[in-house]
Amino acid sequence: MSAAIGVFDSGLGGLTVVRELRKRFPAHSICYLGDTARVPYGTKSARTVERYALRCQEFLLKQDVGLLMVACNTASANALPAMVASSPVPVIGAVEPGALTALAASRSKRIAVLGTLGTIRSGAYEAAIRKQDESAHVVGMACPLFVPLAEEGWGHTDIAEAIADRYLSELFAGEPDVDTLVLGCTHYPLLRDVIAKVCKARAPLPVTIVDSAAAMADQAAGYLSAAAGQTQAPLRCFVTDASRMDELAPRFLGEALEAPEMVDL
Amino acid sequence: MSAAIGVFDSGLGGLTVVRELRKRFPAHSICYLGDTARVPYGTKSARTVERYALRCQEFLLKQDVGLLMVACNTASANALPAMVASSPVPVIGAVEPGALTALAASRSKRIAVLGTLGTIRSGAYEAAIRKQDESAHVVGMACPLFVPLAEEGWGHTDIAEAIADRYLSELFAGEPDVDTLVLGCTHYPLLRDVIAKVCKARAPLPVTIVDSAAAMADQAAGYLSAAAGQTQAPLRCFVTDASRMDELAPRFLGEALEAPEMVDL
Repeated sequence: MSAAIGVFDSGLGGLTVVRELRKRFPAHSICYLGDTARVPYGTKSARTVERYALRCQEFLLKQDVGLLMVACNTASANALPAMVASSPVPVIGAVEPGALTALAASRSKRIAVLGTLGTIRSGAYEAAIRKQDESAHVVGMACPLFVPLAEEGWGHTDIAEAIADRYLSELFAGEPDVDTLVLGCTHYPLLRDVIAKVCKARAPLPVTIVDSAAAMADQAAGYLSAAAGQTQAPLRCFVTDASRMDELAPRFLGEALEAPEMVDL
Repeated sequence: MSAAIGVFDSGLGGLTVVRELRKRFPAHSICYLGDTARVPYGTKSARTVERYALRCQEFLLKQDVGLLMVACNTASANALPAMVASSPVPVIGAVEPGALTALAASRSKRIAVLGTLGTIRSGAYEAAIRKQDESAHVVGMACPLFVPLAEEGWGHTDIAEAIADRYLSELFAGEPDVDTLVLGCTHYPLLRDVIAKVCKARAPLPVTIVDSAAAMADQAAGYLSAAAGQTQAPLRCFVTDASRMDELAPRFLGEALEAPEMVDL
């Protein structure tokens, strides 16, 4: 396909997926929608998340995209079946790519998933992993402090380390054989170094960290051309609320973002 | 008046205000609305907050309340004029009571306000304080980690102390003469002990902590009867999303909450 890629997220964290896509598929233009007026989805019920996700999908489909990527793990975990059912173009969620990559990486077949409350409560990663391998064991750990930490720009502080230590100590105490850890939220790559450090200190086994943004780009490769040497195709960005754009967007995208357009959904 | 009190909040934190009202005005029934589907307001723009707040007010007015209390500091800071303009009953916001109490408590007339990004960015406390006393100096400090800390139930941990220390050290380094600190968010009373401890360690002057929930109840006294010895009038609770009610509500209310009713606004 040569049409644009539509990327949907509850907020701006999905720009970590855009960053990956732009690097690997520069020929494809990208249309991003961040539902920043309603962020975060992670604390909302499945029903509410589905309602908002469908409204956002409808908007992106009107922008003539040929592939939809649901960067938001919470939306993927709770709304993907409904989104797939009502989309004429392929829809890639965040959960399945991360789940398959984790399963391929794990020797012990004991996999931990870090995510928002909504993602963990949905059991979506566990379902996706065990659909492939019933013998695999999946443990979820909700880490509600990680998103505000990443947004505050404190991803590399001692405080981030203390918080990661609190969550992961509890995790490894209960599940010492975990050897693979999925970063099941778009914000968590900003805490990757701290999480890796705590894993080294606390995990009995060496732990492989799987980033769901990178795993999504792997899966998108089936639909996209990776033509190199081209100029970068445009990125168009829509948000439902303009708050903190200038401060947050570059943290996730890795570069400045041109002024986003406001939409009322 | 003898009608019900309507209490509006972006989420469940406003139950700290309900707790105060029930203690002081037991004869008045309370109708609470938490816009839990859209919480938090603190990261959203003024325009979006105003839009949601007016929709919530409309709902509460239909419940036949005789007094409206806007427990949410962000909504008070950004939407109060619009709410007052479209309400037939008195509306008490969170900002003015906290501001007046702080001004009365301060000797140095250098007052710090802790709040969400939205509250601090609005400058509402500063405006309310300086309307009374132009010579007063107000400094705002956004503390985005405090809400998730309170919701995680980590209000008394070393991590909460380290985070409070990071925010308040910066505050007192820049403003050594602050002698009064307003807890400008419904969640912050759950961190009060830790904040008080850090103030003792870091503030050059003794610091008075002002809780805006208590200040609101003081202002409501002008409209309500404090008849004692009565049985507790009913509390009816509405939410726009049911997520985490059972876990969070008792933390703020100080007792279990009967099953809330869902409304789609």
